[in-house]
Amino acid sequence: MDTNKEKINASKAALEYIKDGMVVGLGSGTTVHEFIKLLAEKVKEGLHVICVPTSYNSRMSAIQNGLLVTDTDAVDTIDIAVDGADKANGIALLKGGGGALTREKIIDYNAKEFVVIIDESKICKGVLEGKVNMEVLSFAAPLVMKELKDYNPKLRVGTGKLGPVVSDNGNFILECDMRIENPKEMEKYLKSIPGVIENGIFTKFSTIIVGTEEGYYRLV
Amino acid sequence: MDTNKEKINASKAALEYIKDGMVVGLGSGTTVHEFIKLLAEKVKEGLHVICVPTSYNSRMSAIQNGLLVTDTDAVDTIDIAVDGADKANGIALLKGGGGALTREKIIDYNAKEFVVIIDESKICKGVLEGKVNMEVLSFAAPLVMKELKDYNPKLRVGTGKLGPVVSDNGNFILECDMRIENPKEMEKYLKSIPGVIENGIFTKFSTIIVGTEEGYYRLV
Repeated sequence: MDTNKEKINASKAALEYIKDGMVVGLGSGTTVHEFIKLLAEKVKEGLHVICVPTSYNSRMSAIQNGLLVTDTDAVDTIDIAVDGADKANGIALLKGGGGALTREKIIDYNAKEFVVIIDESKICKGVLEGKVNMEVLSFAAPLVMKELKDYNPKLRVGTGKLGPVVSDNGNFILECDMRIENPKEMEKYLKSIPGVIENGIFTKFSTIIVGTEEGYYRLV
Repeated sequence: MDTNKEKINASKAALEYIKDGMVVGLGSGTTVHEFIKLLAEKVKEGLHVICVPTSYNSRMSAIQNGLLVTDTDAVDTIDIAVDGADKANGIALLKGGGGALTREKIIDYNAKEFVVIIDESKICKGVLEGKVNMEVLSFAAPLVMKELKDYNPKLRVGTGKLGPVVSDNGNFILECDMRIENPKEMEKYLKSIPGVIENGIFTKFSTIIVGTEEGYYRLV
């Protein structure tokens, strides 16, 4: 299986949604990176778009590829957001492996259309199960971990700095193990915990495009 | 060479400086981690100290070991700071490998006494040469990189999140390669660049304790 080819094919399908003059929300991650490169080609051919990235990473990638980027304060609406996912069934997505879930949800949920692009390895058959990522205020982290003690809560640690990973917004990433029977309810519950800024369960989207080696299909 | 034994011996020597009732600034890193464990033992034996950590990492380590921690707003003075270094000659230190250099400099420079603890591998004979780490505002990073273009500036990237590492203060870590003939001047110059919050050249300290397998000696 050529996962990269799948990502490119999903990105190509998403590109069909982009019309001249649109404000485009750019998600984060490797699949979106492919989309950024393809979008940049269209722009070189004459397409006009303004991009609103969801992470420093996507912002840098967009700029390097020659796209025009700005922030939410400089645009009236976001016409479309294109973003990836760590896991997806037909009902919900799990996101946040890259630590960008908060800005992603802000952009994705505020866009008029939210197009999800994934490769086939991301599809989860049946009940969603796996890592649920949350962005939490450092001040609240111990309390949120107590609240979620049944879900094996762990502050994400990486390399590059001592201690917990800090997000682009200056907060911690908390990881839980969950089997999610009712994604909408769990999304709402996690959001309701004081100190949780956002969570990686996404239940609102327009379509999920799955790239294959030959082309693509829609999961939803 | 048992580096860990050296770290413990340096920490033991630093422990001699700690008197009952002191406010102790806790640096960051593996050597300070050994110091924290030894300090915690003394506290269990009856010593009273209040600790002001320089990173989430040291804070968590101190709390786990049973030390009382607080922040700069809750203490009048910091009696002593104990911190490690990535490199040291007799004149200056290079710090920031763990990304905690800003809070470290704030605490270390504001302490009445600043005791540096290192193992022998950190000693740099002659002119300091190596990675100079800086904490920079993300907004200013491209401009700071232009200013420092002769020093191979690179934004630090790690694992755990997409894109550049974000510090405990929400900023980027910029790494440069430098040979530093005049540390005090370079420290001042880097600090003078708009957008540079702090840099990892430290030129003010009370003593540098070098741990050996058998004991310790003072570099300064």
